[in-house]
Amino acid sequence: MYDVIIVGGGPAGLTAGIYSVRRNLRTLIITKDIGGQVLLTHKIENYPGFIEITGMMLSELFRQHAESLGVGIVLDEVVEIKKRSEKDFMVMTLHGEEYRAKAIILAIGREHRMLNIPGERKFLGKGVSYCFTCDGPLFKGKVIAVVGGGNSAFRAVEYLSEIARKVYLIHRRDKFRAEEKLIEKVKSKKNVEFILNTIIKEILGKEKVEGIKIENVKTGKERIMKIDGIFIEIGHVVRKELIEKIGLKTNEKGEIVVNKECKTNIPGIFAAGDCTDVPEKQIVIAAGMGAIAALSAYKYIKS
Amino acid sequence: MYDVIIVGGGPAGLTAGIYSVRRNLRTLIITKDIGGQVLLTHKIENYPGFIEITGMMLSELFRQHAESLGVGIVLDEVVEIKKRSEKDFMVMTLHGEEYRAKAIILAIGREHRMLNIPGERKFLGKGVSYCFTCDGPLFKGKVIAVVGGGNSAFRAVEYLSEIARKVYLIHRRDKFRAEEKLIEKVKSKKNVEFILNTIIKEILGKEKVEGIKIENVKTGKERIMKIDGIFIEIGHVVRKELIEKIGLKTNEKGEIVVNKECKTNIPGIFAAGDCTDVPEKQIVIAAGMGAIAALSAYKYIKS
Repeated sequence: MYDVIIVGGGPAGLTAGIYSVRRNLRTLIITKDIGGQVLLTHKIENYPGFIEITGMMLSELFRQHAESLGVGIVLDEVVEIKKRSEKDFMVMTLHGEEYRAKAIILAIGREHRMLNIPGERKFLGKGVSYCFTCDGPLFKGKVIAVVGGGNSAFRAVEYLSEIARKVYLIHRRDKFRAEEKLIEKVKSKKNVEFILNTIIKEILGKEKVEGIKIENVKTGKERIMKIDGIFIEIGHVVRKELIEKIGLKTNEKGEIVVNKECKTNIPGIFAAGDCTDVPEKQIVIAAGMGAIAALSAYKYIKS
Repeated sequence: MYDVIIVGGGPAGLTAGIYSVRRNLRTLIITKDIGGQVLLTHKIENYPGFIEITGMMLSELFRQHAESLGVGIVLDEVVEIKKRSEKDFMVMTLHGEEYRAKAIILAIGREHRMLNIPGERKFLGKGVSYCFTCDGPLFKGKVIAVVGGGNSAFRAVEYLSEIARKVYLIHRRDKFRAEEKLIEKVKSKKNVEFILNTIIKEILGKEKVEGIKIENVKTGKERIMKIDGIFIEIGHVVRKELIEKIGLKTNEKGEIVVNKECKTNIPGIFAAGDCTDVPEKQIVIAAGMGAIAALSAYKYIKS
């Protein structure tokens, strides 16, 4: 029986771990990976204290910090959480394990929405990217595609057009959700070409991305385009399964609603970081919320 | 004319600075010192990424980070803030300077409540301490006094009684605000003595603390006690002057009320860190709020 089980091993989860053990709570982190989205970020320049650090290195420092204090970390995936009674939660994992705890902290982050097409996973980091600020500089002078029609897709195109030789913006419709100003700015770029009403069927290549197979949804015509890289900017999602089953309140974006104390609508379940409705998703913000969630969980357990 | 003026140079203020300049806002930090309360903390073990670091070192890293990105820092004290119109604030300082900005971020932290008696400032760091966890270990085998009657005073006595030869708890009344359990625990300690209904008139010494002059408020009798150190644990306060004059909403503790976006009741004034009504005061929490405040200020300025 643990005091706290923390689901997720990004900045929010690891910081919650640090604060929980420092309050002498028996603490377990269950997570798929160490670092979460931070791992996808090549260069971090806005976590105070480190002028520049890689996502991998910062995640490693967070892990060391948590483990040095005695936080247990299990690499597994939580598939269900059940509240048995007050201060008695059951956590079930993909590997078939069951754990019990008096309180739960959800720090499951968000995931980049994927296209879910052949080649996407295979070429991750080999031409497929979900982070233009991290990976953009690798495509100097190359031909690339950006997928999406919202602000983040347009920001990606704006940024990447300064680096790449040619940028295709591929969007499944012919209207955009992005802000007008941003669209105008991008339209004025000479090396940007819009390919609209078009979906991507497959990402092609041997060792790395060499092209994509696209289909015009109006005409049904397919063709193959040669590109060196593809940036998928179609938004983020919080994993639904876990939070829907147990009845957590979410906002219209599917983010867990929390108050200032990182309490959810279910007593004993706290949430921190990108999976919540905090207005900004940043490493230091997630870490701060992890600390708040742990201290709130402590009060809940001791009450 | 700045975009943002940040008042305060602790973790909240410096992080707000980092985030503001990264959004290309013309940013100025006006602060009395770099680090705020962090400077008073000898050893920090709960800022994620650093297993152990001194308050001085962490503050220096935050400063370097902010300055490397181009944040301007002025060492001065803000004495008044006036709202002239929407997106036009005037900030006046102790040194008689006037600055203008479109938005203000208050990150003024809290201060240890002082006794305001002779010798208190003079012997700060020379036997006078406001942080038992930081300075306690320096008083191994010594005779010390703790002033206060709340939880933090009792926690100080509990901790220090394991280190010092003798601990006097001095309290101006004969009743305590501390939790019963904590009081009982402390009462059971053999090397702890309560001196009640007693105030401290002066802290005495040459180079460092050598004694205190105390007065029994019931009898009016004064006497001098020999001690090697004194821990003042009578709570924290947010500086009132600045926030009252401009009409900021505060809670019953005098903390600035903010929402999730670090907005105060005055549009264009944001607040972050220990000066706010956030339920927990911690470095990483303050830093996270600094980031939120800066991003909210950015939205306000661009709206």
